Amino acid sequence: MAATETLTAERILEATEEVLRRYGPAKATVVDVARVLGVSHGSVYRHFRTKAALREAVTERWLERTIVALRPYTEGPDAADERLTGWLTALFTLKRRKAGGDPELMATFQVLIGENSAVVQRHEEHLVEQISRIVEDGHHEGVFAAPERDYATTARAVFDATGRFHDPAHAADWSATDIEDAFAAVVSLTQRALRA
Amino acid sequence: MAATETLTAERILEATEEVLRRYGPAKATVVDVARVLGVSHGSVYRHFRTKAALREAVTERWLERTIVALRPYTEGPDAADERLTGWLTALFTLKRRKAGGDPELMATFQVLIGENSAVVQRHEEHLVEQISRIVEDGHHEGVFAAPERDYATTARAVFDATGRFHDPAHAADWSATDIEDAFAAVVSLTQRALRA
Repeated sequence: MAATETLTAERILEATEEVLRRYGPAKATVVDVARVLGVSHGSVYRHFRTKAALREAVTERWLERTIVALRPYTEGPDAADERLTGWLTALFTLKRRKAGGDPELMATFQVLIGENSAVVQRHEEHLVEQISRIVEDGHHEGVFAAPERDYATTARAVFDATGRFHDPAHAADWSATDIEDAFAAVVSLTQRALRA
Repeated sequence: MAATETLTAERILEATEEVLRRYGPAKATVVDVARVLGVSHGSVYRHFRTKAALREAVTERWLERTIVALRPYTEGPDAADERLTGWLTALFTLKRRKAGGDPELMATFQVLIGENSAVVQRHEEHLVEQISRIVEDGHHEGVFAAPERDYATTARAVFDATGRFHDPAHAADWSATDIEDAFAAVVSLTQRALRA
């Protein structure tokens, strides 16, 4: 590192992701992270008190990128039904790209995700909140029915019903030849369920 | 075995399931199966030409039990929408019971399922055909809309949309406290999608 650069949490997280990718989650250590940054491991521990806390923060940062990428779909001006299809398609595309584009990083994060189930649960809640906002907008716009106005339950059902296209447990299916058709059919089913 | 009993394929499959449960899929051999039956391993090979063929047949038999158990829901006299909810509930119940009731047998079949992906694919097709029949009946009864009369595509979408509640990849979720609510919400979403 350039000696003049300040050691921020963000820089440590970047370096940690790089170290995890390079050495794998079983071997990567805080000392490796410090070495990449040209600092002592004590400097790293001043930002993250334990190795577990550092790994959790890396996991959170990785998942947060998905939330940020999907945010545009949670707001107008497009109609809510179009935004829902856009959101679901963008999530599927992101997940496929992650799974297919950098298999080593994906395998690494599969391990981290297994270690940090609370982080994953919060992440799922964020995703469900995004769907919930679209469903609520759709109700106000008159494109979605919301018989009980229970947007959160409906949003969770949409999230679960589309799980085959975003849950990493199904990543092996995502290169199947008929996966696009299967995705389109489930999105269409979901839209029919919500339609006013 | 009683010497008078005829060695049938069915008896070999029963014994194989027992041997797999007892020794685990990594250790179970055709010789073990023959020993349980009190016959030579040559007698077993006369019915199943290879160990792989025997394991495939055991997998098929295990999965077929699910098809048989669900068959009542594919026929009247109940209305198709009730039968669909019944079918989905019965499948979820069966899968949960299998996963929770006999974890060793479940782990064994997870291995066999991994070895026999063509068998699993045929099994899924049978399940989708059962849904398809219910959807078609519902259309004729007037309880389900079927805008394009493409029952197979709709049925596959219903199968995929409810995957969290029957795909063994999600078995770890099935003891969660909110799983019943999540299931009810997805079934309700599916029913809203199909409703005429």
